[in-house]
Formats: sequence, structure tokens, C-alpha cells
Amino acid sequence: MPDPQTALPVVGMIGAGQLARMTHQAAISLGVRVRVLADSATDSAAQVCPDVTIGDYRVYDDLAAFAAGCDVVTFDHEQVPLAHIERLVAAGVVVRPGPGSLPFVQDKIRMRERLGELGLPVPDWAVTRDVAEIVAFAGRHGWPIVAKAASGGYDGKGVWVLRSPAEAADVVGHAASAGLRLYVERHVDFARELAVLVARSDAGHEAAWPTVQTVQADGICVEVIAPAPDLDPVLEAEARALASTIARELGVVGLLAVELFETPDGELLVNELAMRPHNCGHWTIDGSVTSQFEQHIRAVLGWPLGDTSTLAPVTVMANLLGGDSTANPSTGSPDADLAARIPAMLAGDSGAHLHLYGKAVRPGRKIGHVTVLGHDRHVTHARAVAAASLLRGGAE
Amino acid sequence: MPDPQTALPVVGMIGAGQLARMTHQAAISLGVRVRVLADSATDSAAQVCPDVTIGDYRVYDDLAAFAAGCDVVTFDHEQVPLAHIERLVAAGVVVRPGPGSLPFVQDKIRMRERLGELGLPVPDWAVTRDVAEIVAFAGRHGWPIVAKAASGGYDGKGVWVLRSPAEAADVVGHAASAGLRLYVERHVDFARELAVLVARSDAGHEAAWPTVQTVQADGICVEVIAPAPDLDPVLEAEARALASTIARELGVVGLLAVELFETPDGELLVNELAMRPHNCGHWTIDGSVTSQFEQHIRAVLGWPLGDTSTLAPVTVMANLLGGDSTANPSTGSPDADLAARIPAMLAGDSGAHLHLYGKAVRPGRKIGHVTVLGHDRHVTHARAVAAASLLRGGAE
Repeated sequence: MPDPQTALPVVGMIGAGQLARMTHQAAISLGVRVRVLADSATDSAAQVCPDVTIGDYRVYDDLAAFAAGCDVVTFDHEQVPLAHIERLVAAGVVVRPGPGSLPFVQDKIRMRERLGELGLPVPDWAVTRDVAEIVAFAGRHGWPIVAKAASGGYDGKGVWVLRSPAEAADVVGHAASAGLRLYVERHVDFARELAVLVARSDAGHEAAWPTVQTVQADGICVEVIAPAPDLDPVLEAEARALASTIARELGVVGLLAVELFETPDGELLVNELAMRPHNCGHWTIDGSVTSQFEQHIRAVLGWPLGDTSTLAPVTVMANLLGGDSTANPSTGSPDADLAARIPAMLAGDSGAHLHLYGKAVRPGRKIGHVTVLGHDRHVTHARAVAAASLLRGGAE
Repeated sequence: MPDPQTALPVVGMIGAGQLARMTHQAAISLGVRVRVLADSATDSAAQVCPDVTIGDYRVYDDLAAFAAGCDVVTFDHEQVPLAHIERLVAAGVVVRPGPGSLPFVQDKIRMRERLGELGLPVPDWAVTRDVAEIVAFAGRHGWPIVAKAASGGYDGKGVWVLRSPAEAADVVGHAASAGLRLYVERHVDFARELAVLVARSDAGHEAAWPTVQTVQADGICVEVIAPAPDLDPVLEAEARALASTIARELGVVGLLAVELFETPDGELLVNELAMRPHNCGHWTIDGSVTSQFEQHIRAVLGWPLGDTSTLAPVTVMANLLGGDSTANPSTGSPDADLAARIPAMLAGDSGAHLHLYGKAVRPGRKIGHVTVLGHDRHVTHARAVAAASLLRGGAE
């Protein structure tokens, strides 16, 4: 139900990480109250948002208590048990994206199956239950192959590149002990990685941003270049059509991120999907008329979608990962030197947009990002990388 | 002292109106915690910020309790008693802008005197204690003249255009009963109003945005066009030099807004000053690389100032004033129809940036603004005005 103070809607977001933090930040402009379900009061979003419910997204009663008073419930992550979501919907809660869509991001095997039914291009893949099946798959496609957990993976977690039957045995053993279902894929020697982000409303309206190039290191997104440089217009159209088809066929309401491989032969293959704001769209905060966070709110509220035009010829986003600085051992503690490095970074590039998430530093953890707008791709890229490096305490 | 969770600074803002709301919103990106001193939990900023102290800015103990734990204290308004600010500083609190600067925005007579000492252009003016002195001033300069309260005025409050001795007598009587000191000014037949916004850091670094044109109705800013159309480059340089001189000579740390008259003869006269984020700079949220709110935080923390470049050839901001809609009687209640009008506005212009303040509607009260970026001045202006009109429930 609407906020009694403003008569405007209340959006409940399950999870209180940086995506919820930036969603609240965007919602402030719209006059829309964001309520977050947080694990703890120190969560990234809980630090900046006054309407925080502490609870466990795995516990139905916590979800139901949280959803009471929200006009719509949406997600910062994909981990909420589907049965709970179905029960919420049965109880009259508006959940977007809904239980008809979420299985395809909660279970990558179902995602792969569904994309196959739709005739969309994916890397060759197979469900594998033991080492023999993995070895057989590798026999058909050649080593290395990629094994993935069907659920629970992110930022490189739950993904393994296998180069031998021995490595396959290790991962199968690990998966068995962790209760993970595995599937395997052909290892794609891609030319680069791309991503398309599209918003879709309940009424079927869609708005996509330009296709971007993403750069990963150890499975973690480290850079996004928008638009993807020198992308063949035919591939751009194909990427957008893919995203539109998936959004429509999977009934997505809200944001859909489609991560793609571009092969050396100029083919596109779908790699991953997400149905929420996504790292590949952080550049839109500064580089697009409408940010992904505002757009997600508009979409889940059924409001008209915003203009996805870019504000500069090129925008480069560089993630800030924790643990690079010698001053920051992997203690999970706040980074006392970060405050000192911020002025140095800002002095070094007065046009770099800083975004910090209030997160304690752990190696490889995303603790923020920087965005630079510019005219020249190489200059802009160099500025973004230098700004991120200065924040990490490295040499420029 | 820094936030224990992030080791980043805490900025205390006295007052919790829309300026504090948008300052908190900007601070989220910087990882900087904003703590607001609010009159009530329903204040504009208190609705969106988790670190709220309820207290009275007129009570020293409330201020001191609020300031404890802040790395720097700054302001959403000019109403804090100067003696309290001096006492905070004596107690070791870092206050920016400080007690050496604030008298010139708290007391317009002191402002006029100081600008005169600096040889800066202001309308002819005089302190007047009775009707005879006002009539004598009008004898020298001609009716109408403008009477202003030395302190406490904003948005047209505390300003009276006097056309006769009888009107002068009315205002003198009102001022006496309200305890207001008055001064009078020549009524300037300006060609238009301009404003310059400049940030200055403790180290003396400055960054100004392009001079803008402001449009007032009944003393309330209703539109800002950035940059000011067809402004003579000589006047632009003069306006910036004026702002720089005032910021330096008054020792401003943070933002300084200088409101100017441009006369038909191409002269500039200083009208008003403010030392905080200001309505004339709301366009910077969407239209500049660095917003005034981020810049204010940077300036008061002593961080390097950001790039003040524009993101489009023209940006138009239109204020949304309460009470225009027939559906909204002047009850001070939330505007239940606003939620219904938002989608219509967004559908009408998918590129218009909406900013709502969470404020109950009262006639003439600023409850939000819209910003449109564009290439053509007239088209962009028309889009902004139409978007604001749709939100007010008027015909497009």
C-alpha cells in the first residue's frame, strides 16, 4: 500500500547489497520509498536507507512480514526459494519478476533448456552426473570444458574450467559434497564478451540500452565499455533481438541482463541471464538519461519506461575490487586508507564519477566502481582504469 | 569522527529539507554518511536517510549532541543562531561555511554593507527605521521601491514591493510587530535574472558552473535555464568574477549562490546570496558532470572539486509547486493524485528527469522539480514546462 506520507508506492527489495543501495538512491528522485530486506543493519543498502527489515530471505514468515505494506516486491539477488515466492503471490503479493520467470535465473539448467526450446544460440552443453559423462562430453568437444553449478553461482563462483579427467573428478567430488547439480559447456574461445540490458514492463513495453562490452578477470566483471566499441550493427541488432525475445518469452517484468559471447566468427552465444539491476548496467547511472535502477523501479511499478539514450559517445565503468592494496589485508575490515585515497583519485580525474558501496574490504569483493564519460574510447578507458587503480592504492 | 563501518567521513547537515535530501542522495555514491538534524521524522530528508537526529537547531544542546561524531557540520538553511555556531567552533566542531562567513547570509544588511565595501555592484539601498525614511528613499529613487527583511526571508517571503507611503506604513507596522529589521532598495527594472553557483574549498580552490538564467514568479524560482541563453561572454566573465570575489572575500567553504539582476543596459547587480546548495543549481544533478550536492560535500570535506562541465547544450529545470491542482486543496496533506499523474508525465516525456521531495502539498510550496536536457533551447524549455504542468495536474 502506498506510503501514508506521500501517497506514492512502496517498493520492497529482497536483499540489501549494492544493487538495493543504488536502487534506493534512484528511488529518492521518484519519491518512491524503497524498503529493503537485509541480513544485517550493516548491509550496503541498510547503511543508506531508513526502511530496513532485518530478516532471512530463506524464511517464508520473514518474507511475508516484509512484503506486508509493499506495493510490489522485487529482488537484489536470485536466491529466494521459488516456493516462497509462489506462496507470496498466492497470498496476493505483487512480485516482479514473478515465479513464472525466476526459475530461469535460479536454475541455469532450466535456463539452458528454455533457451534451447526457443532456438536461441547457446554454447553446446549437457547435464552431467559423474566424471564419465564429463569425460564423454570432453571427448565430443575437446578439453578444456567449463563446468557450472546449476544454481548459487556469481562473480566466478560456481564456474570451473576443466582441463583433464582429474580436474573433473575434483569438481564432481566438490559438487557432491556441496549438494550442487552440475552441467558442462564447451569452452568458448570468444573474441570478447558483450551484454545487453533491457527493461520490460508488465504491459510488454521494452527499452534497451546499447549493447556493451564487458571485461572479466577471474570470472568477475572488471570493466564495461558502453557502447561496445566497433560492434557490427548487424550483431547489435541481433543482440537486442535476443534480449527482447528472452524478456518476452520468459515474461520478465523489470530488468533483464543478457551476457553474451561474441565469437571470432561474429556469432553471438548466450552465456548468462539476470533479472535485476546488473553490473553491466552500472554505467547508466552517469552515462544514460535513465539509469538501470530508476528503470527497474519504473518497470516493476508499471510506470512508463525512460529514455535509454547515452549522454556521451563513450562511457567506461571500472569496478573497484577489494584486497588489492597492501594496506588492506583480507580481514574483511573497513579500509582505513580508502578515505585517504579518494581525494587523490578525485584530484587525478575531476570528471570520474565515484560510487562506493560501504562494504568492508575482502579480496576480489566488489566495493565500488568508477565511471568516466568521454569522446575517445582509449582516453576514456585509460582515465577509468587509472581512477580505479588510484582508489585501490596502486600506482596510476 | 569517521563512520566505524566504512572509515569514511560523516557529514552533519543541519536541517532536513529537500536540500539535505538531495545531499544525502549524492553522498551515497561517495560512501559518505550524511546525518541530518530534522524537526520531525517526516521531514523531506528524514524520509530517505537513516541517520536522523530529531532536534531544534535553535537549541545549543541539540546542536552539540548532533555535531558529536560528525567530521564536519554544514547547513540546509541559514537559520541557525550565529552564537551557537561560534560556540560549536570553540568546542572544536568543524563548521563549513563557518561563523566568519555566515553573517553575510543571515543578515542581508551586513551582506549589502560588505558587498559595498568590496566595491561590488548592488542596487541602491538604505537601512530604514520608519516610514519617513522610506518615503525619503523613494523621493530619491522613485516609487516603487522594494523593502526587505534583513533576515528570515526566502522564496519571496520577507520581500515587499512598495508603491506608496501607505504601503510603506503597512510594512513598517508589520515589521515592528514581527520584530524584523527592514532595509529598502531601488526597484530594479531588470532584463532578466541570472545566477552563478561556485564551490570553494578551505584550500581556496574554486569551481563554478556556467551562469544560468532564473525565472521567478511571486518571488519563487520557477525555472532555471542553463547556461543562460545568449549571455554576453563579457557578462559571463563578470558574473563569474563577482562570484569568485565574494566567495574568497567572505571566506566561503562549500557552495555560494549569487543571484544577479541583468539590467537592460547590460549591467549586473547582486541581488541575493546563499551559502549552501541552491535551487538555481538543481539542474546540475542531471545536467552537469558533478552535481551541486556532490560538490558541496567535496568542498566541506576538503576533497578536490569535481568537473562542472555540462552534459548537454541546454538544460532546463522547472520547479513543481504545490497547490495548483484542483484536486489538492491547501490542506498540507499528501497529494493522492500525484501518483496517478507521474505515469502520465513520464509517458509524455520519457527523457524528463523527475525529482520529488516527499513533501505534503501546500500552495506555492516547492514539492519537486523536473529537468530536461536538450539541444534546442525552445524545445527543451517547452518539454520541461509541459512535464511540470502534467505533474501539477494542469493541461499540457
